[in-house]
Amino acid sequence: MRIHVLLFNGFEALDVIGPLTFLASLPEADVIYYSCRGGLVSNQQGLSILTEPFRVASACDVLLIPGGRGTRDLVSDKNFLMNLKDLVNRSTYLLSVCTGSALLACAGLLDGKSATTNKKAYDWVTSFSKAVDWKPCARWVVDGHIYTSSGVSAGMDMALGFIADQYGQTYADECAQRAEYHWNPNSDQDAFAILTDK
Amino acid sequence: MRIHVLLFNGFEALDVIGPLTFLASLPEADVIYYSCRGGLVSNQQGLSILTEPFRVASACDVLLIPGGRGTRDLVSDKNFLMNLKDLVNRSTYLLSVCTGSALLACAGLLDGKSATTNKKAYDWVTSFSKAVDWKPCARWVVDGHIYTSSGVSAGMDMALGFIADQYGQTYADECAQRAEYHWNPNSDQDAFAILTDK
Repeated sequence: MRIHVLLFNGFEALDVIGPLTFLASLPEADVIYYSCRGGLVSNQQGLSILTEPFRVASACDVLLIPGGRGTRDLVSDKNFLMNLKDLVNRSTYLLSVCTGSALLACAGLLDGKSATTNKKAYDWVTSFSKAVDWKPCARWVVDGHIYTSSGVSAGMDMALGFIADQYGQTYADECAQRAEYHWNPNSDQDAFAILTDK
Repeated sequence: MRIHVLLFNGFEALDVIGPLTFLASLPEADVIYYSCRGGLVSNQQGLSILTEPFRVASACDVLLIPGGRGTRDLVSDKNFLMNLKDLVNRSTYLLSVCTGSALLACAGLLDGKSATTNKKAYDWVTSFSKAVDWKPCARWVVDGHIYTSSGVSAGMDMALGFIADQYGQTYADECAQRAEYHWNPNSDQDAFAILTDK
């Protein structure tokens, strides 16, 4: 299970570490962190994480894309979005957390698909593509090989949902229990849903 | 709010990032990562995080201590434990997650106090001190300025509990909601408790 994590300055740490708590414990999991140019990537939690540059990334089983403040600049960064499309094309599964789905929408990667995103940033994210079937009430959404989750901690439930799809519910339950995590296995159950008629 | 995070090779990433998701958003929060000698610290999730050395650490409001596989070596590392006591003496509050409490117990910092820890590693951690009132059924425990939590994701509930103690329950609820996190505000409610007569 080759897992690639896409980082950028201003990424939300829990969007990455929440899902990885479960994904990195999968059989033969190998996790590599990438950023556009490689080197140290930092965020508002004072983290500085060492990354490899995009250009050396090979194919992977899972590409994990976090959200965070850094997405605000990247949605209009054409070079980044081109690189993102290239990385996605070499990934079997794509898992995005929170406003990470804004990056996917801007790269046109969600057009014609169902997806969700952070609920406080819902209007901002969904403004990037009218060709996406955005779900205002979903902890996470699966459409083919693309998983998108709601805000921050929803990425943990999505990762366990992905593990349940791949390895079965019992295995996912065991992963959650090891981390003493109360997980919500129902992707439609969303206590933070946008309460509108959308 | 000056927050210091103690890292070591083999730390559990969610023990750090879970609590920091909430703590780093507190008013004027400033987060600095430390390790014994400074430099890059890595773990089983492939993370390499840049740290400052212990010797340059000043006083702080919160010292956050994670658990993880790395604690297995550190419990017998006298130099590390001496440095840990020194750091703790300069911290107003001490928050440990998961097997981080093994390090505190080995340094004698929990003697005469109540505490808890990871439930799968309960027997291992509690073996380090008979002078601690270990709680087998607790999401987290507060004794004076020392907070100790159960395994991994329990650190998030503990951090929100700390925030509720400092800033009130409403503020803590808002922090949880921003991260779309379902938090358990009851420290005695522990679904992963050790089911023994202890």
